[in-house]
Amino acid sequence: MSVYTPVSEGELAEWLRNYAVGTLLALEPVKAGIENTNYFVTTTQGRYVLTLFERLPAEELPFYLDLMAHLARHGIPSPAPIADFSDQFLSRLNGKPAALVTRLAGTSVDRPQAQECAELGALLARMHLAGRSYAGYLDNPRGPKWWRDAAHAVRAFLDAGRSALLDEELRFQSLYRFPDLPRGPVHADLFRDNALFDNGRISGVIDFYFAGIDCLLLDLAVCANDWCLVDAARDRRLDETKTRALLGAYAALRPFVALERGAWPVMLRAAALRFWLSRLYDQHLPRPGVLVHAHDPEHFRDILALRAGAAEPPWLD
Amino acid sequence: MSVYTPVSEGELAEWLRNYAVGTLLALEPVKAGIENTNYFVTTTQGRYVLTLFERLPAEELPFYLDLMAHLARHGIPSPAPIADFSDQFLSRLNGKPAALVTRLAGTSVDRPQAQECAELGALLARMHLAGRSYAGYLDNPRGPKWWRDAAHAVRAFLDAGRSALLDEELRFQSLYRFPDLPRGPVHADLFRDNALFDNGRISGVIDFYFAGIDCLLLDLAVCANDWCLVDAARDRRLDETKTRALLGAYAALRPFVALERGAWPVMLRAAALRFWLSRLYDQHLPRPGVLVHAHDPEHFRDILALRAGAAEPPWLD
Repeated sequence: MSVYTPVSEGELAEWLRNYAVGTLLALEPVKAGIENTNYFVTTTQGRYVLTLFERLPAEELPFYLDLMAHLARHGIPSPAPIADFSDQFLSRLNGKPAALVTRLAGTSVDRPQAQECAELGALLARMHLAGRSYAGYLDNPRGPKWWRDAAHAVRAFLDAGRSALLDEELRFQSLYRFPDLPRGPVHADLFRDNALFDNGRISGVIDFYFAGIDCLLLDLAVCANDWCLVDAARDRRLDETKTRALLGAYAALRPFVALERGAWPVMLRAAALRFWLSRLYDQHLPRPGVLVHAHDPEHFRDILALRAGAAEPPWLD
Repeated sequence: MSVYTPVSEGELAEWLRNYAVGTLLALEPVKAGIENTNYFVTTTQGRYVLTLFERLPAEELPFYLDLMAHLARHGIPSPAPIADFSDQFLSRLNGKPAALVTRLAGTSVDRPQAQECAELGALLARMHLAGRSYAGYLDNPRGPKWWRDAAHAVRAFLDAGRSALLDEELRFQSLYRFPDLPRGPVHADLFRDNALFDNGRISGVIDFYFAGIDCLLLDLAVCANDWCLVDAARDRRLDETKTRALLGAYAALRPFVALERGAWPVMLRAAALRFWLSRLYDQHLPRPGVLVHAHDPEHFRDILALRAGAAEPPWLD
C-alpha cells in the first residue's frame, strides 16, 4: 500500500484547474513505491503521475523536479514535471507538497540480457552528459555520512560476522573519496524496476527521488550490482558479458578516465554497502504506518562480500 | 519543395553527437512548409523535427523556441525543443541556425466539425492561460505596422475595387487598437494544418514561427476564419454551430471580458486582412528561388468582404 494521503476525483479535478492538461478522465492509485503517495492520472490531454511527497525534505524537492525537467528537455526519457499556471512544478494538494509529471510508456525488464545492459549503459552516458549543464546541487543523500549514521543505527541488530563485515567496509571505504572523479547528477537508484523498455529500447527512467550529486561512476556500480548478476537469486557475481555490455556502451559515449578504472572495484563495494545499509535500516527500524515488503538485506550483504572478496576482474578497460 | 539547405545523414549524425537523443536511424525531408528547411528525424530515442531557419531573424528565434518549451512544460502539446549538451535549443548546421524539436503524433483534420472546433477552443484557452507566465517578448510580426508596409508593397497590383476594400479596411482598423484587451503569446497562424488530432483529441499544435505577443482574441479570430466556415470553397460565412463551439469551449476555461465581446467583429476583419495581405504579397512579390503553391488571396478577400459586411452576429456571448 503506497497511498498515505488519499486524493478523491473531485479534489484532483479542482486542483487540475490550475494546470493546462485538460480535464480528468481517470485516477488510479499506484501500488508500487514506498516513499511517496502516487496516482496514475489520465486527462483529456495525456497520462501523468501525481506524486504527493510524504517525507522528502521540502527544500530538496526542487532539485529532483528541476533535474527531471532538465533531463527531459535534453531528450532523456525521464518524467517531465508539468508546470502549473503559476509556472511552478511544485504545488500543494491535501496538505502535502505535490507534483504532476508525465507518465512514460514501457515495462521494466525482470531478467535483462546483454542487449538491455548495453541500452542502459548508453542511456546512463547520455544522462550524465546532459546532466553536466544542470545547475542544481544536492549532495547524494545516501553518501558516506549517511552510511555512518545508518551503520550506527543498525549495528545493535547485527551478529558478530555481519558487524565485522560492516566495520571493515566502512574502514575500507574511508580510505577512498575520489574527489577528482567526474561528478554530476546521478540517479543513484536505477534498479531494473526504475527503467522502462519498449521494443527493446529504454523508453523511461523513473523515480529520481534518490538522485544527488556524486561520482558518475556510482550510477554504473548501482546498475551493475542489480542488472549484471549471473543469477540474482543464486549467484550474485557479476556476469562478464552483461557487465562488459553495460560499461562498453557507456564508454562509447563517455570514455572513462584513468582514475575511474582504478575506482571501479571500490565503487561496486560502495554501492553494495549503501543498499545493504538501507535494507537493514528498513528491516530493523521500519517507519510507523509504513506497510511494505522490506527487501532482504542479505541479498546485498552477499553482493558486498563477493565484491570485497575481489575474485572478479573489473572489466572496465 | 521546402528543403533549401540539404543535410546528409553523415552531417546530421555528426551534429547529433552534441545531443542526448541517441543515434540516427532515419532522415526524411518534409515537403510542407515554405519558410524553413524541415526534416523528419528518427533516432534510437524518438521522433523529431529538424528545422534549419532560412530567413527568420536570428534574434527572434529564441522567442519561438522558448515559447514552445514553455508551453510544452505546461502540458500543451506543442513541439518541445531539445537542448544540446551546451544546454542550448539553438545551434548551427550547414551554416544555418538549426533546432531539433519533438515530433508530435496525429493528423490534421480537413473538414472540422463542431466537436473539433470545441477541442480547438479548449486548447487555445489552455495555451493562453499557460502563456501568461511566459517572459519572452516579440511584437506580433504581422501586426498593424506590417499591414501598412505590405499594403504599400502590393497596392500597385490591385484593381480599383480591391484597392478600395484594402484602404477602407486599413482606415477602419486604424480606429481600433484595443490596448486594454487581454494580451499574451498568440500562435497567430493556427490553421487546420497546424493542429494534429488523435482519437478526436488535439495531439499537437505545430509551427509557432508566426507567434508573437498580441491580443489573445486574435488567435480565436484566425481560427474562426479557417475552422468555422460554412464551406471553405463556396460559402465563407461563419457557421454558427462551429463558431459557437469554438468560442464556448474557450470561454469555459477563460471567460471573455466585456471589451472582447465588442472587439470580436473587428478582430475577425483584422485576421482576414492579415492573411489577404500576406497572400497578395506572396503572389505578387514571390521570393526568388522559392517554388511554392501560393495560396489564393481571393479566399481571404472574400472573407474580409463578408466580415466587413457585418451581416453576421458575433456569437460571442
